[in-house]
Amino acid sequence: MHHGTVELISVGNELLIGKVLNTNAAWLAGKIAALGGEVSRCTIVRDDILDLSAAITESLGRETEWIITTGGLGPTFDDLTLEAVAKATNRPLKLNTQALTELKKRYEKVRSERGGPIELNAARLKMVTLPEGSDPLPNPIGSAPGVFTSVGEQKLYSLPGVPAEMESIFDTYIAPKMKNAFGVKVRFETTLQVRGVGEGTLAPSLAELKKANPNVYIKSHPKGRLNGRLSIEMHIAASGKEAQLVRGSVDTVAKALEAIITNHGGQVVRSE
Amino acid sequence: MHHGTVELISVGNELLIGKVLNTNAAWLAGKIAALGGEVSRCTIVRDDILDLSAAITESLGRETEWIITTGGLGPTFDDLTLEAVAKATNRPLKLNTQALTELKKRYEKVRSERGGPIELNAARLKMVTLPEGSDPLPNPIGSAPGVFTSVGEQKLYSLPGVPAEMESIFDTYIAPKMKNAFGVKVRFETTLQVRGVGEGTLAPSLAELKKANPNVYIKSHPKGRLNGRLSIEMHIAASGKEAQLVRGSVDTVAKALEAIITNHGGQVVRSE
Repeated sequence: MHHGTVELISVGNELLIGKVLNTNAAWLAGKIAALGGEVSRCTIVRDDILDLSAAITESLGRETEWIITTGGLGPTFDDLTLEAVAKATNRPLKLNTQALTELKKRYEKVRSERGGPIELNAARLKMVTLPEGSDPLPNPIGSAPGVFTSVGEQKLYSLPGVPAEMESIFDTYIAPKMKNAFGVKVRFETTLQVRGVGEGTLAPSLAELKKANPNVYIKSHPKGRLNGRLSIEMHIAASGKEAQLVRGSVDTVAKALEAIITNHGGQVVRSE
Repeated sequence: MHHGTVELISVGNELLIGKVLNTNAAWLAGKIAALGGEVSRCTIVRDDILDLSAAITESLGRETEWIITTGGLGPTFDDLTLEAVAKATNRPLKLNTQALTELKKRYEKVRSERGGPIELNAARLKMVTLPEGSDPLPNPIGSAPGVFTSVGEQKLYSLPGVPAEMESIFDTYIAPKMKNAFGVKVRFETTLQVRGVGEGTLAPSLAELKKANPNVYIKSHPKGRLNGRLSIEMHIAASGKEAQLVRGSVDTVAKALEAIITNHGGQVVRSE
């Protein structure tokens, strides 16, 4: 099992027809980076039991320590995540007593707001029918709980697709565990706006700079021409336990980069 | 080989740290849906030769007909897509004469704009060093050409990550081929804004409606409470050769859905 590795699996046809941007994955990736972790892969699959269970099986097979799925936990016919987790981990689905109690409590409350009773139909019971041995993660906003499934040393979390629900469950149940596991306290980053020099001109020096600073993230994003001038956004980042060291290593690389750019006739506008 | 299947592979660390939203994949997915195709999976991988070549190998192994990668075609040390394509398809990398000629032509032009000459260094030559048998797809905006690699009946396209360059090469070289292959002329969709009824209440009727209309895309997106009322966005879409039939099937489902919602005490605001 590869300690510290994280994969995201986003579920939903709407993400594969250009209707919805995958903001959930970007939000999670940003949070995980800030916690000192690294997302190594993100996969979007359709609301299809075979596609979805295959993606989970593949992530487990890569011995990823943390796997987080988003979406597919609701009551409709195309909500298939729990069935896929059960299939991928070879467990039966069982009505979960704790999750059922929470759901009934919620429907008591929602009923009193709206007047009419809410029928606990088969579709709604599906949301609390979990892979055997999985734990529900209470959803403070919606009906579908998140689900935690321990697979040996691997941790498989299934979160709802509604952003506010996903974020709340992540912050409450996953972020503290990751923070503890990653043990990293600080992340620092800076961005250089470069003008008047091409990526290809800088490329050999960038490779040397990276080799000399293997623990610093260095990435150039060419932006084409802005007001007729070649433009590149250079992103520099690092994380670690000692704030001063982390900031120092980012500053060192940023300064070296500025010198390289100036030597090649370019200019830097620095923004932090 | 599965005719008509499409997978997207997006390359770049920046997509896995929450810095950049994967708008390239969403743009491509929307375009492909409009052309009558269906993206079955989208994968984001890091700028890592093993991760990237593994993702390509997996897509080829799923017998996907169309595979489109975006990103990783530039001159810097972390631009590894062509090396990964070579590895995944077991071909040597070779300087491509046609691509080199185009690049030299471009640098003649860019030089005259900027005054100084552009050195054709090893980093820049990497952009025109393609897997043997691959074809360059001229880039009208930037330096790195797109690359087409035919693998048996499977088509593997590698596009730059800069959105304007990616879009231009897709529109010129891939869209016409897809349009021809998919042969679909029309796509029609509508969205119902639903208020005052929960997804769980509608779920059994939605499953029946889907069963009765297997060729119509029906998807509900719960939006939590807006102004205190439960809100759902219902998306209905279909594509086919006969405009009237396609529109008719979407209208039929939309009307049936409105009746279901009203019967359960909800309301619809329709927007097209």
